[in-house]
Amino acid sequence: MGDPCGIGPEVVVRSLADEKIRSLAQFRVYGFSEPMVRAAELIGVEPFWWRVGEGGTAALAAADSGVHRVMLIEPEVKLPSSLDCDARRSTAAGGEASFQFVESALAAAMRPQDDPLAVDGVVTAPISKAAWHLAGRGRWPGHTELVSSRMNAKNTRMMFVAPRLRVMLVTAHIPLYEIRNVLTIGRVHDTISLADEACRSLGVASPRIAVCGLNPHAGEDGLMGDEEKRLVAPAISLAQSQGVDVQGPFPGDTIFNAAVNGRYDIVIAMYHDQGLIPVKLLAFDSAVNMTAGLPRIRTSPDHGTAFDIAWQGKADAGSMSAAIRLAAQAARTAKSGGSIKEGGPMSRTSAQKS
Amino acid sequence: MGDPCGIGPEVVVRSLADEKIRSLAQFRVYGFSEPMVRAAELIGVEPFWWRVGEGGTAALAAADSGVHRVMLIEPEVKLPSSLDCDARRSTAAGGEASFQFVESALAAAMRPQDDPLAVDGVVTAPISKAAWHLAGRGRWPGHTELVSSRMNAKNTRMMFVAPRLRVMLVTAHIPLYEIRNVLTIGRVHDTISLADEACRSLGVASPRIAVCGLNPHAGEDGLMGDEEKRLVAPAISLAQSQGVDVQGPFPGDTIFNAAVNGRYDIVIAMYHDQGLIPVKLLAFDSAVNMTAGLPRIRTSPDHGTAFDIAWQGKADAGSMSAAIRLAAQAARTAKSGGSIKEGGPMSRTSAQKS
Repeated sequence: MGDPCGIGPEVVVRSLADEKIRSLAQFRVYGFSEPMVRAAELIGVEPFWWRVGEGGTAALAAADSGVHRVMLIEPEVKLPSSLDCDARRSTAAGGEASFQFVESALAAAMRPQDDPLAVDGVVTAPISKAAWHLAGRGRWPGHTELVSSRMNAKNTRMMFVAPRLRVMLVTAHIPLYEIRNVLTIGRVHDTISLADEACRSLGVASPRIAVCGLNPHAGEDGLMGDEEKRLVAPAISLAQSQGVDVQGPFPGDTIFNAAVNGRYDIVIAMYHDQGLIPVKLLAFDSAVNMTAGLPRIRTSPDHGTAFDIAWQGKADAGSMSAAIRLAAQAARTAKSGGSIKEGGPMSRTSAQKS
Repeated sequence: MGDPCGIGPEVVVRSLADEKIRSLAQFRVYGFSEPMVRAAELIGVEPFWWRVGEGGTAALAAADSGVHRVMLIEPEVKLPSSLDCDARRSTAAGGEASFQFVESALAAAMRPQDDPLAVDGVVTAPISKAAWHLAGRGRWPGHTELVSSRMNAKNTRMMFVAPRLRVMLVTAHIPLYEIRNVLTIGRVHDTISLADEACRSLGVASPRIAVCGLNPHAGEDGLMGDEEKRLVAPAISLAQSQGVDVQGPFPGDTIFNAAVNGRYDIVIAMYHDQGLIPVKLLAFDSAVNMTAGLPRIRTSPDHGTAFDIAWQGKADAGSMSAAIRLAAQAARTAKSGGSIKEGGPMSRTSAQKS
């Protein structure tokens, strides 16, 4: 559900109110009932979920029969203060609640797959880092670090999926001048491997990967920087020798067109803005963030709590719906034993676009 | 004309063969007759120009009467070897020829405006840096440096104009890791001033300028880098105090949407890929490069010599046509004494879009 003071409850309810989305999987919302009911009222739909306590094994088993597509699971949370959704800002209560919702969802994801309480993947609605801090959960800078820790994943990458473009970042939330301290052959190579794996997990049988250079014009043959020759090209060669279909380094300003036009299934960007500028330009409200390198699926909408427009019925659920579709697609691929289809980039991403 | 072994002659002839383009101004092509005639044959049009020697004052004065919209001016060039357009690669002859063509055009641009040999602006077709090097002109890394020198301009910036987006770069062709050595308050401030001036020169009466941050999320309030606070924000404040309508620093991954949607007339990017990725994604074949900070107009298509497809009749003239339209628009604005119209971003760029 994310932070109840933000747009999380609204986008969750609006997305799952759509019968087409509901038909994609069985859903378990980890959150409180009151914000869910209120969001439904605001949006003008009847509550469509079955409310159970966190340990409601029997109820969840019944849900598996398909009678109830959406279960609301209310974790028992000891709040530091009373929760006031109308605060529409970072609060200790909202922070603690949203923290515990994710903890419950992650615990479910890590259960053995035949456990009735288990889930195949987690879609995280927006939380507020400031609220987590107020709740004494400040040691986690955000969702991704918590998810990686709980899933025991050491080597993860941010991936973004837009209707005609997938992007994975070698480096993400660090200052631009810090890139030189972390960019290595190993880090680029690991990203290529994770990109290959992530595309396969989304049903791309033979992923075609493009890698950006770091410098303008990918260094223009060494005239504007040698990181392409020293770091990027060796990582690409190594991955190629392992059978990965990867090309580059390409100039950052031209490769995204090639990808959008279907030449590549994913582009690997060296740093945040290099990868996110094209994603947000192509799909400002509908891009999905996916964490690669985890043992379970994790997606999230590519926006924040948007406190300023929360609880006004204005929140656009496009990105949340896309995040849910992508998680469902990955789960179906995993259940069918890997890559399930081959085709052009349009068919490959059809689940996000419809 | 650019390098005769590249696509320059083809895109020049194809653009000027269009009556609508020809009606925008009087044109003087600095180049050789033979490639022009050959390009016309390849494209299937009759030669539409009047051929004169470089000193043909009388002929040019006659052209001013409007009888001949396009004059071909053949500079006297001492070639190091015979010119073979079919080489379709960097050659000393092609390099020297293209170098002299630009020199002639720049000399014309720097003549007093009432001189019949004068021109209001220069549109440069693609040259090959390698060919300039072969011709012994290697001290000029490219067009822009030569243009800046001949026009005595010390402080210039690269600007890109796409149908719905204008971008100016604070830093351009330097390695990413070198940005920290050149990014200063003064350099950001100068770019803001040049952006304001450049927009006015294109007819935007009250330019609204957005400035990107350097780091992810524009530093997220200092959490991911302090250059926004130390360098970018002070430059913005200074420009604001001088009456410039400039805002920022904004996250690079979200500001381009705002600009494309009409909220800003130009975006200032801190480095090459930050600015060029959105330009090329929006307008791969039709973006125009404009040099800001010059005493005369200079535009160029945003592509190279494309030796690989030269002389096959395949070259797309979209970017050259857009570069010609933009130069004509700037010349009209200058002749009318500055900003000529006010309006939304669509009308402001109508000359490039039609």
